[in-house]
This record gives sequence, structure tokens and C-alpha cells, in this order.
Amino acid sequence: MSILVVGSVALDTVETPFTKMESVLGGAASYFATAGSLYDQVNLVGIVGSDFPQEHLDFWHDHNIDLTGLQIEEGKTFHWHGRYHMDMNSRDTLDTQLGVFGDFHPVVPEVYRESELVFLANIQPDLQLEVLDQMPANRFTVLDTMELWINITRPKLEEVMKRVDVLLMSEEEVRQFTGQASIPAGVNELYKFGLKYIVVKLGSYGALLYGADGTYFSAPAYPLEEVVDPTGAGDSFGGGFMGYLSQTRPDAQGRYSIDDLKRAVVHGNILGSFACSTFGIDGLRVLTMEHIIARYRDLVRYSHFEPNGITR
Amino acid sequence: MSILVVGSVALDTVETPFTKMESVLGGAASYFATAGSLYDQVNLVGIVGSDFPQEHLDFWHDHNIDLTGLQIEEGKTFHWHGRYHMDMNSRDTLDTQLGVFGDFHPVVPEVYRESELVFLANIQPDLQLEVLDQMPANRFTVLDTMELWINITRPKLEEVMKRVDVLLMSEEEVRQFTGQASIPAGVNELYKFGLKYIVVKLGSYGALLYGADGTYFSAPAYPLEEVVDPTGAGDSFGGGFMGYLSQTRPDAQGRYSIDDLKRAVVHGNILGSFACSTFGIDGLRVLTMEHIIARYRDLVRYSHFEPNGITR
Repeated sequence: MSILVVGSVALDTVETPFTKMESVLGGAASYFATAGSLYDQVNLVGIVGSDFPQEHLDFWHDHNIDLTGLQIEEGKTFHWHGRYHMDMNSRDTLDTQLGVFGDFHPVVPEVYRESELVFLANIQPDLQLEVLDQMPANRFTVLDTMELWINITRPKLEEVMKRVDVLLMSEEEVRQFTGQASIPAGVNELYKFGLKYIVVKLGSYGALLYGADGTYFSAPAYPLEEVVDPTGAGDSFGGGFMGYLSQTRPDAQGRYSIDDLKRAVVHGNILGSFACSTFGIDGLRVLTMEHIIARYRDLVRYSHFEPNGITR
Repeated sequence: MSILVVGSVALDTVETPFTKMESVLGGAASYFATAGSLYDQVNLVGIVGSDFPQEHLDFWHDHNIDLTGLQIEEGKTFHWHGRYHMDMNSRDTLDTQLGVFGDFHPVVPEVYRESELVFLANIQPDLQLEVLDQMPANRFTVLDTMELWINITRPKLEEVMKRVDVLLMSEEEVRQFTGQASIPAGVNELYKFGLKYIVVKLGSYGALLYGADGTYFSAPAYPLEEVVDPTGAGDSFGGGFMGYLSQTRPDAQGRYSIDDLKRAVVHGNILGSFACSTFGIDGLRVLTMEHIIARYRDLVRYSHFEPNGITR
């Protein structure tokens, strides 16, 4: 199978309490594609400027990422500058320069329309809708978003929600969107948009999978001694989640089994943990499937317990 | 086997954003004993005043709780008055009246010295030491504590830590005690006191078990639609944890298997969840082992995933 992703490709300046790096490869689609390509071919839709380093394109080209849908325009690549607080959980955006991204309209190449899986990374809902309009309606589609779009363009975001299968949200975003303090109550409101599944990302506490069919699954986080740089963790989660799904076979109606969805969430957590382990996107670039499988086996050991409840 | 607990027995006034109840049965030892007695006999060491309702004593007497070690003195029972904030996670203590608890010195009855398991609930470290001095040294002992004792009587608390097997702490307490932002780094410092295991309570995110032998286990929380009253959740966790251990058989050196410790943490989370489901201690009073087993089975379903990582 193959996975289509639309999202930002950026050159970031990232500051943590310990390090600062300038013009490093960033953007939601970059993290997603680098993570997802460990499992299967990723078809990238996005835009970069004429300043975008060729080495990044070469790396992707050599690593199972199709760049037919990546527009390269005269001008500057999207630039984000952020600074993490001491706790590494919260951050401030110090600067955003849209560059060529300001006039971006995604174009899905004919060959990408065969992609069985679609990931709408965290960009304006308007652009996410433009991609959905260019794709066949029956693709298994996952939506990521952020606080900004909930605040400034909620009606458009709701339009997108009505047209996707799975929504990824942090627990703060669920509370913000629904006004419910309780996550289960918030999730119940989100089902009204026709979503089949909602994945609630809990950061260092793992992730929860809720299904409109009553599914509930709590996936453990991969324990890290140290979080070096959480940038891109959510996008890498998406790459692991959809990458794993691309290895499985949906039924005739395009539905994935609950066992496969559970494993996909675990893979999402694993790829998110690798993204946090090193600065920038580097942690994902050196990964192999063996590294992923090793963490998967660790997580089985770290979270499973004997299914019989009492010995007496 | 039987479990000895020393701790507070109180009459609480508890306010949540939705309810207020006065003079309800409270105190760490009350929650622990009520939870633990669902598994095995609990031997209670504590003190109440002459105002303590006979009905509570009758209930415990009829439910596998030995009250030989409960002193009943002329005067007022310990009284705590707290108010929860809207998020139900944080709370303010509005009033504390020590009453007869102010002059309390625990006396362990001869017959209690046979207890194979000892739980030092959250009281002054001085009193916890008095109990340890009255017990044989080889009992499997679990210590609970709170921010207050870390702040005002840390050297005594460290003395207790050196004499127990397991420490229960919330993640905030680990950070406060060790000054480490990272929980794994904080836990590594706690091992210096000779602890065999550290259980880090994560509230609605579950609990982590760390072992000096390298053990790591992440136990899922039981998902609740609504938290009615979190009072006593940590003490009830202790009751489920030690209650389950009392059903198992340690090896000749008194060590529990890692599989049993994992299951004990899961039982802890389950009893904590029942404590949160209703106001005060009522949720625990109507429980049977069937209720507990049902939640245990739910948690297996909610958290286990197929152990093979990838299908291809």
C-alpha cells in the first residue's frame, strides 16, 4: 500500500533549555513522512522554497518517499522558531515566516490517488479540504489539527472532521474543542461528527484509542530517561500509526480490525518516542525496523500482566 | 495471611464542586482497611474519639477487619475538611482538627505481630517508626507518605524509607523529594535508600512500578466517565495492592514474583477507581470480589495488544 500525506515542510529554529539549532528540517509532513517511510511508501504533498537544501530531498528520495507532489517555488521555505520551557512540555512560538507556504494550494498528482491511506497533517483546514476534494472518497483518512485551527477556523475544521475516519487530538485539544473537562465526555461529543475512531494523545502518558463502536484501548508510552526535543512527536506518532496500518489488510469495506488499530497506536507511541530522543528529525533518520520491533517487544513486557485476576 | 495497617481514622467534611458531606468516615487507614479487607484480614492500628459512630466499628467488625489495635479515647476523632477544585485533581485543606490523634502512639497488639504484610499509611514518620520497632524486621512493608512530611520532617521520613520494601509516591512527590524533573531520574535517586520497589501513582493515568532489579511496569488506569470524589484513592490503591499480595505466596526469602507485583499494581488501580466512583468510602463498602474481577478483565481487554509487532 502507500500513504498520502499533506502538510508543512519547514526549516525550524528550535531552542530547548540545553540547545539551540537553526534551520533544521522540520514541519509536520517531514516528521510524518520520515517516520511512515520506515513501513511503506509515503507520497508527499507540500511546498518548499528555493532555499530548501537538496540533501533533504536526496535523503527522502532514497528512503521510500515520493516527491512528485512536493512543489518547489522561488522564495523562502516555511520557517518556525520555537522555544521549549524547562519542563519540555510547553513551548512558545517566537516567530513564524510562511514564505512560499503562504500561497500554497495542494495538488495531488494523478499517481498519488491510488494511495489507500491519507494523512491530513496539521495545516489549515481549507487546505485539508482541497486534498479531500482531489481524492477518491473511500480512502481511510486520519486528521491531525491544533489549537490554532480550533480557535480561528472551527467551522472549516468541523467540515473536515465530517469527512475523515480518525481524529488525532491531544487531551488539551479535546477539552478545548468540546468544553468538557472529562475526556470520555468530550470524546462522546466528537462522535457527532461521524468519526469512527478518536486517538487522544497523552504525551508522556501514552495514548488512548476510542471507537464509536465502543472500542477503548490504553496504549503505554515508551519510557524515556530524557526528552531531548519533543518537536514532531505527534506527527511521528501519525507516521507510526499509519505506517503500521499500511502493513495490514482491511476488510472488504475498508475497515481495520481492532487488533490492528491497537497495534497501530502502539507503533505511533514508539515513533513518537524516537522523535523525542534526539534533537530535530535525526532520531528518525537512523531508525530501522529492528529498532522499532525492539521497542515494541519492550512495551509488551512493560505493560502486559497475567490475564487471570486472582489466584485463590 | 493478614495485613497490618497503621494510619488515620477520621471523620471528614468533603466538598466537591457538586456536593458537600459532613462527618463522613475518612482517614487513610479507613480507606486502606475497607479496600484490603475484600481480599484478606486487615489488622487495624489507629485511634478514634468517643464521638466515633458505633456503626462504622460494627461494619468493619463484620467485614474481616480486626479492631484489637484501634484505641478508643475520650475526646474528638481526627477531623479533616477539604474542598476539591473544579478539575477534581487539586484540593485545599480548609481545616484539620487532630483531636485524640494529637497524642496518638501506636500500640501493636501481640496477635498482630504475625501479620505478614505491613502498610504504613500516610501519617507522621515518627509514628511509622514506632510501628516498625514493634514488628519483626522481616515483614514485607509498604510506605505511603505525603508532601507535608517531605517538607517538615524529611530526615525521619528517610529513616522510614531505609526500613521498608516498597515506597508509594505520586509523581509530584517524586519530583518534590528528589528535585528531578524526570521521573526515571528521580526514581534512581530513591533507590539509594535501599528500596526494592517504587510505585509512582499517576492519578487518572495509572501507575508505574519500578524495581531496583530493573523491573519496569506501566499499569493502565481504570477509565471512569466521572470522578465523583478522589478522597482516599491512594489509600485504596494501597489496599488493593497489598490485598492482592496477601493472596499470593512469596518465595523463601519473602520476595514476591514480578508477575504478582504487576497484578498487585493493577488491583491497586482498580480499588483506587472504585474509591473515586462514589462520594466518600461508600463505593468500597458495597464491593465484592466479582466487581473487582470484572474490572480486572476489562483492563486486560483495554490494555493488552498482540505481542507480535509487525505482520509482514
